[in-house]
Amino acid sequence: MKPLHLTLAALALAGSAAMGETIATGDLGLVIERTTGAVLLVDQSDRAALARIEGLGDLSHASLVYSPDQRFAYVFGRDGGLTKVDLVERRIAGRVVQAGNAIGGAISDDGALVAVSNYEPGGVRIFDAVTLEMVADIPTGSKTIGLVDVPGRRFVFTLWDAGETWIADLSGDEAQITKITGMGKNPYDALVTANGRTYIAGLFGEDGLSALDLWDEDPKPRQVLPGYGRGEEPLPVYKMPHLEGWALAGAEFVLPAVGRHEVLWVDARDFTETGRTATHGQPVFAMARPDGRQVWVNFAHPLNDTIQVIDTVTKQVVHVFKPGPAVLHMEFTPRGHEVWVSVRDADKIMIYDTQSFEKRGEIDADSPSGIFFTARAHRMGL
Amino acid sequence: MKPLHLTLAALALAGSAAMGETIATGDLGLVIERTTGAVLLVDQSDRAALARIEGLGDLSHASLVYSPDQRFAYVFGRDGGLTKVDLVERRIAGRVVQAGNAIGGAISDDGALVAVSNYEPGGVRIFDAVTLEMVADIPTGSKTIGLVDVPGRRFVFTLWDAGETWIADLSGDEAQITKITGMGKNPYDALVTANGRTYIAGLFGEDGLSALDLWDEDPKPRQVLPGYGRGEEPLPVYKMPHLEGWALAGAEFVLPAVGRHEVLWVDARDFTETGRTATHGQPVFAMARPDGRQVWVNFAHPLNDTIQVIDTVTKQVVHVFKPGPAVLHMEFTPRGHEVWVSVRDADKIMIYDTQSFEKRGEIDADSPSGIFFTARAHRMGL
Repeated sequence: MKPLHLTLAALALAGSAAMGETIATGDLGLVIERTTGAVLLVDQSDRAALARIEGLGDLSHASLVYSPDQRFAYVFGRDGGLTKVDLVERRIAGRVVQAGNAIGGAISDDGALVAVSNYEPGGVRIFDAVTLEMVADIPTGSKTIGLVDVPGRRFVFTLWDAGETWIADLSGDEAQITKITGMGKNPYDALVTANGRTYIAGLFGEDGLSALDLWDEDPKPRQVLPGYGRGEEPLPVYKMPHLEGWALAGAEFVLPAVGRHEVLWVDARDFTETGRTATHGQPVFAMARPDGRQVWVNFAHPLNDTIQVIDTVTKQVVHVFKPGPAVLHMEFTPRGHEVWVSVRDADKIMIYDTQSFEKRGEIDADSPSGIFFTARAHRMGL
Repeated sequence: MKPLHLTLAALALAGSAAMGETIATGDLGLVIERTTGAVLLVDQSDRAALARIEGLGDLSHASLVYSPDQRFAYVFGRDGGLTKVDLVERRIAGRVVQAGNAIGGAISDDGALVAVSNYEPGGVRIFDAVTLEMVADIPTGSKTIGLVDVPGRRFVFTLWDAGETWIADLSGDEAQITKITGMGKNPYDALVTANGRTYIAGLFGEDGLSALDLWDEDPKPRQVLPGYGRGEEPLPVYKMPHLEGWALAGAEFVLPAVGRHEVLWVDARDFTETGRTATHGQPVFAMARPDGRQVWVNFAHPLNDTIQVIDTVTKQVVHVFKPGPAVLHMEFTPRGHEVWVSVRDADKIMIYDTQSFEKRGEIDADSPSGIFFTARAHRMGL
């Protein structure tokens, strides 16, 4: 027997905390309130808001990642603000304005480092996750997009102007940078597959996508889906679909077509197109339920009051409904039994059962956009 | 603005708890101490034990599942004990001895129901996750094995004597049972794939495996891997590999061969064999790192002091080492940067970096066996 029994004092302390507020963090989440610079702390099991935390700056196009213990969120604001939010104490634990214009971030696989991708000045800055002190500054001379984390304390990101993808390895004392050229003209966004292996950049300046096998010792860009974006009049960059909208459903990816009322089905092994499904409008997000059996799709303005649910076996729409005006985002509970939907112009989050499609609850929120559940802490490349 | 600001009192309460002990639960875990009927509460980030919780009965072949908030564990003992452990208060929150001889359990996708699979009396009993009151008793007249949860508040399990698989749907007021016959002779264990779609039973009474497509409206057993188990002298049932040892590495499963010193590679789409890798001994578990790039293999007595690491691209062994006597189990951190290893006869848990293979720490434990991190709360079919 080892002397590890809990002391009475510690027990009493833990007990008193338990009586107060939720302190287990596995079923919590944050919702971005884009117009007020606040985040709403929510509880999935109670289908309830627990607290509002304010003072996060410009949260248009904001995103966030979680620490491995699911206690802290790192919120990336458009204004270059990096805000560390403590979900247990329900307050801002730290904040730095680290650049003039930022576009997302990532956290290393060990939770030690937080990286932010910047437009102005262009590059990536990397911060200690505990103190928010900057530990590495990687200027790129370019707007920098598509920042993701991959195993081995590495970050991958892409240069809009230069058409290059860089891999920054932070496992040693100094950041080691590998530069991959020839990614294509004006990559505007990128994603990494859930296993951290395949990095895919969308191109604004030409049709098609550029893929890298990060397991290769010397990754080279490979052109895939050559028709992606072709055949329509050119779209402004803000109308190009976010690549995070890709969903892996079984052996296929489902992704929004560019400028069309359809989603595309793509073989996950070789990225060849396997089908198309006509949709209500121009899709924004096509999100797979965690088991991959359903894909939920929302749409661009002015058709953004509607959600369609597609069965991934038949590729047919099996359910259509209108949660309300301006459906911006959807997040599934980790095992997929419910889905939370941001309805911005109704100032509501709506909660639905994914089997029966019945509404299970709603929560007031100020112009809600992104919903982020703490289970994301345990997934790669988000 | 909604009136959701945190009160000062609540802040002070949360603050005092935070000063005491870890209360975020995302990076915690429990280790089974099989000889003493205890579980050790551990912290992945601190690589440390936090507390020992005793009084859980016979924990030989024990397993456990977590509540969605990662606060509670439900521990399934061999003696039929179902013990609810509170990770926040670090104590037993409830315990029932619900049968004479049990073999594992599962938790419904919504976290509301906990099911236990029993040998004696044969069947499945289902309990309210909050109160541990029994809400359904499903006798089968047979030893019952291979219990898993699948989406839609359903449990799937298999009858050793009858060779049937039953699906219990608990989404309504009464349990609805679907019985599937002809699974084969003496199924001894089963698994479900991570998406909840394919249920695979291992057969003791004949060669091969039996697979069900649970997305089919009327699932029928299909024989797969017809050579699995063939060509060797018959093994006693306790030497048959646990099917939970299957790992999905990219587009292939990796699984221990029966009675041979090798692992098999199987195409995840059609279950045809794609390769074999010779190993140090008879594999017990072949565990994929979460990104699928590596598979870590431990071995049966008397070669159970060794671990081999296989690269899933080349299918070659890339690292071999000896953590110590009786390596029983391995658990990866959720994003795979480290692995924890139970070394029973050294009374230690060893922790290794999965990139460098360097040892990062060790923890004292009494005859440790299974290691279960709280991230399992968010995965299906465990």
